[in-house]
Amino acid sequence: MARYSKRMEKIKASEIREILKLTQIPGIISFAGGLPAPELFPLEKMEAVAKKVIHNDGRDALQYSTTEGFLPLREHIVKRMEKMQIKTKAENILITSGSQQGLDFSGKIFLDPGDIVICESPSYLGAINAFKAYQCEFREVETDEKGMIMSELEKTIQENPNAKFIYVIPDFQNPSGRTWSLERRQRLIELANQYDLIVIEDNPYGELRYEGEHLPAVKSLDTEGRVVYLGTFSKTFAPGLRIGWVCGEGEVHNKYILVKQGADLQTSTISQRELSAFLDDYSLDDHIETIIEVYKNRRNLMLETMKKAFPADAKYTVPEGGLFIWVELPKAINTTELMKTAVEHKVAYVPGASFFPNSDTKNTMRLNFSNMNEENIVIGIERLGQLLNEALK
Amino acid sequence: MARYSKRMEKIKASEIREILKLTQIPGIISFAGGLPAPELFPLEKMEAVAKKVIHNDGRDALQYSTTEGFLPLREHIVKRMEKMQIKTKAENILITSGSQQGLDFSGKIFLDPGDIVICESPSYLGAINAFKAYQCEFREVETDEKGMIMSELEKTIQENPNAKFIYVIPDFQNPSGRTWSLERRQRLIELANQYDLIVIEDNPYGELRYEGEHLPAVKSLDTEGRVVYLGTFSKTFAPGLRIGWVCGEGEVHNKYILVKQGADLQTSTISQRELSAFLDDYSLDDHIETIIEVYKNRRNLMLETMKKAFPADAKYTVPEGGLFIWVELPKAINTTELMKTAVEHKVAYVPGASFFPNSDTKNTMRLNFSNMNEENIVIGIERLGQLLNEALK
Repeated sequence: MARYSKRMEKIKASEIREILKLTQIPGIISFAGGLPAPELFPLEKMEAVAKKVIHNDGRDALQYSTTEGFLPLREHIVKRMEKMQIKTKAENILITSGSQQGLDFSGKIFLDPGDIVICESPSYLGAINAFKAYQCEFREVETDEKGMIMSELEKTIQENPNAKFIYVIPDFQNPSGRTWSLERRQRLIELANQYDLIVIEDNPYGELRYEGEHLPAVKSLDTEGRVVYLGTFSKTFAPGLRIGWVCGEGEVHNKYILVKQGADLQTSTISQRELSAFLDDYSLDDHIETIIEVYKNRRNLMLETMKKAFPADAKYTVPEGGLFIWVELPKAINTTELMKTAVEHKVAYVPGASFFPNSDTKNTMRLNFSNMNEENIVIGIERLGQLLNEALK
Repeated sequence: MARYSKRMEKIKASEIREILKLTQIPGIISFAGGLPAPELFPLEKMEAVAKKVIHNDGRDALQYSTTEGFLPLREHIVKRMEKMQIKTKAENILITSGSQQGLDFSGKIFLDPGDIVICESPSYLGAINAFKAYQCEFREVETDEKGMIMSELEKTIQENPNAKFIYVIPDFQNPSGRTWSLERRQRLIELANQYDLIVIEDNPYGELRYEGEHLPAVKSLDTEGRVVYLGTFSKTFAPGLRIGWVCGEGEVHNKYILVKQGADLQTSTISQRELSAFLDDYSLDDHIETIIEVYKNRRNLMLETMKKAFPADAKYTVPEGGLFIWVELPKAINTTELMKTAVEHKVAYVPGASFFPNSDTKNTMRLNFSNMNEENIVIGIERLGQLLNEALK
């Protein structure tokens, strides 16, 4: 009956969201989502700021506000960006409903049907789904432990003159957990400048580093205003507020503001002001330190348990930060098919296939280590190891 | 440098948002926005619920949640829909970031470049801008004091076989303030069924009726699941929460959920839970009664002052509810040009031209009566009347 737009043929249910539904089965141990640990949320502090925001500024907090976002929050963000070695100004920050909205806007602003998005292989499935809605095609570029392979990127650019942007997650990449070297970051900028391309840098996890040194964001190396940086408080603070941001310049940034107007006018004033009040009154750095300590232990425990419980020929990344470990299994294993058995055994992960927009890779999976407690990590990984060993018999 | 998508040629700054910036000049009396009166926000109650939500359910309130929205809030909405004579279920409700997001999604789901949207003339400029992003064209249908003229609508449908949907605001329309008769509503459904069209019913003001009887929503007359209903708490409660909803059925509704996933995963959990807790603990009906009393007085005062201060040949609507009065002036007056002088004299309105996607109508304006207090209504309307009289000399 209803005649939908052509793009709707491309829009399918996000497998992660569907899997998250499965994982609400009581008693399941889920390594599927990318959820932060709720036991670490600073509840007393949030109770104080929630009360304060209404008490002190209730009329403004409940009213319409500017599309760009609450100015004091944007100023806080400018200060946080300095940690990524990015020097910017509040006028270059647009508050979005999570960084997912920044991804959707990037598709809307740059992509016509048939346009090419260049991305890492594998890449974040939420981004792939957001871009697909604009009827683009994807070119995956191979990655190694130092990030996207630059000779492969250049070849891909040359073969695809209608590429519009390069989408990258250089820090603790989703799903691989890998971090790009400084050289690769510099080379990416050189290539973007040379071939006149936009770079969308998605950095939800950059502040969650458990070892090694912080590297400068790609945006900090941007010499021509062609990097659009997407940030979020979902992983460092709390996803329920839905506060992310876009950092960009000039005409490009102005397009994001225009698109935000038509999309939903502005992000929740309440969410913005509660977060901003938290940043006024408390130290997010202290909070991040607490998170890092817990997540680092969980990562270590997961890796140790995998070493004992997983098949000897399973390969996996050892991420220096972020939320995910990426597992490559012998080709005999199809992780999409195995998921049903896993859920029956009350353990869940994300099958890797969803992270490859084109290629048909069935033997990978993404494991999250931030959301389950230590006990469940051991039980769940042992359970999963057993299933994998049985599947290989 | 950056190569944007073709749709970006269509996306311009919303004149209302730009005017709202102008109207932040201190001391200006603005009838431009569609803002509720902030002095009526129930601050003490909201302070209590903001505290309670974190205290009782903080971990869930700050965490990711389902795309569809917080179930208890959706159940509250089902109950409110009964007042519009709509019988529905929580599974048919999707929480959006204001009803503006429902408008954007409607464009995304149904419109390919060149498709036709049929709308009232004039129509809501935020909707026009949202749909334009999907490169559609508009066919305006003439309206009178009973709403869209049905013989004109049928003619328009017949002339435009690639029309995808009819966008209507049947209650206290934005900008005209007019309300559709029951007969027109019934006929709209007959025509939608006959010609296989979707109807997008936008109803932000329906509960704000100051006189006369409530009429059934178009959605309540829907026999084939082809009306998508957009609701919001922005006008009856508080816009800063950014809580709206889509009510639809079956496959069509499922498309909205899919698009929401890609657009921003979900609406702010904090906003949803604070509103839901308010609806648990307090009476929104009582709050709406308070609003109605104040807005009714402001409408009456504005109309009385217009009668004395405006040129004798100015025509204007007498809305039975909502937030707006629509003014038609002698053809000699160009309200877009007059706006500059008006702002210099510290009074603002929205020039009518933005509400006509195609036609070139320069002699109309929209006046909001909810956001200014009684004193400012009298001063502002007298000031505006003086400017209009001078412009006609």
